[in-house]
Amino acid sequence: MTTVGLVLYPQFTALDIIGPFQTLVDVPGLDVFFVAAEKGLIVDHSGKCSLEASRSFDETDSLDIVVVPGGFADRNLDNSNEVVKFVKKIHPTTTWTTSVCTGSIYLAHAGILNGLTATTHWASYDRLKALGAVPSEQRVIKSGRIITAAGVSSGIDMGLELVAVLYGDEMAKTIQLAIEYDPQPPFDAGSPSKVSPEFKSFVQGVFDNPNR
Amino acid sequence: MTTVGLVLYPQFTALDIIGPFQTLVDVPGLDVFFVAAEKGLIVDHSGKCSLEASRSFDETDSLDIVVVPGGFADRNLDNSNEVVKFVKKIHPTTTWTTSVCTGSIYLAHAGILNGLTATTHWASYDRLKALGAVPSEQRVIKSGRIITAAGVSSGIDMGLELVAVLYGDEMAKTIQLAIEYDPQPPFDAGSPSKVSPEFKSFVQGVFDNPNR
Repeated sequence: MTTVGLVLYPQFTALDIIGPFQTLVDVPGLDVFFVAAEKGLIVDHSGKCSLEASRSFDETDSLDIVVVPGGFADRNLDNSNEVVKFVKKIHPTTTWTTSVCTGSIYLAHAGILNGLTATTHWASYDRLKALGAVPSEQRVIKSGRIITAAGVSSGIDMGLELVAVLYGDEMAKTIQLAIEYDPQPPFDAGSPSKVSPEFKSFVQGVFDNPNR
Repeated sequence: MTTVGLVLYPQFTALDIIGPFQTLVDVPGLDVFFVAAEKGLIVDHSGKCSLEASRSFDETDSLDIVVVPGGFADRNLDNSNEVVKFVKKIHPTTTWTTSVCTGSIYLAHAGILNGLTATTHWASYDRLKALGAVPSEQRVIKSGRIITAAGVSSGIDMGLELVAVLYGDEMAKTIQLAIEYDPQPPFDAGSPSKVSPEFKSFVQGVFDNPNR
């Protein structure tokens, strides 16, 4: 079995990790599980969603695929952060090291995005750049064996691309049809380039000053 | 606060409920929580995702909004099913009763979709029809104060429409930009009308005979 570790930590964003989860978990041959510093319930950024981690970082010495979600805990990180330390430990063992949203901030802190084109939540491009990566407004970016995806919902697109890389286009299309991923957003406001500068600044402000 | 109860039951599908969750949980004024027959951890259809319910059906006598996800537990339902009973109890109290994927099978069993146009996962149109609803291949369908959405990933679209109805288009666009919902599926195979009949039959077969 190909092992897929989906990382959890306090204040993760739920859809960041459930998007990839749902594209991967029913694929034959993949052993998908949630992994965190400690086993047990991990609470998301809203405080309303508790997901269970079935493995600890300590008992996970190698993974074929790791997925690091974003959330609200990636300001003022340093090298003592448990997720950063786990990425440093696990990356040399993986076939694919991936992130969704500000999960790439952890990858950057672990020193594996230096000089690489990568993405993150659009409101965090500057932070990713300050950490040595080259931010780009693409939905999913492959740089060698590292894949970074944009904000929150992009993990679904990333997951399908990963399935295609691993098992071919037909398997990815099977999953896409199974999860009926034929998106029809009621508005066209999902990317900073699609909204007015004023609207973008307003939403950026919410992220810069989260009252949580 | 407007109460939003997200229903969980054994063998729910995770993205069905986390899609709506992520569009609703950060909206000011909404009190979002997971509700199930018993409080505590509820395991999804894959056995790999455990989410915590913070309220029980018994202690929930009214809700402004209820969301029922789909999953793999909706074959051979009868009126003694806990979710069906909860829908019967709670629907008279709600402003919006909603479902994602085969969550609509529970609504139909509760007798609230009789003669109404509604949707479900595409592989379950026949089952929805047999229960008295009029299935339609639309992503999100509003029939009075009942909203049904298509398979799995459609809950994101449904959630954004719900935010727009509740708080206006600007709030929905704010959430859409916050979750960077600018979908770019790598393939165009997310709907049964977009794939070959052979491919559709193959995936239908997987759903008709799940080896779980």
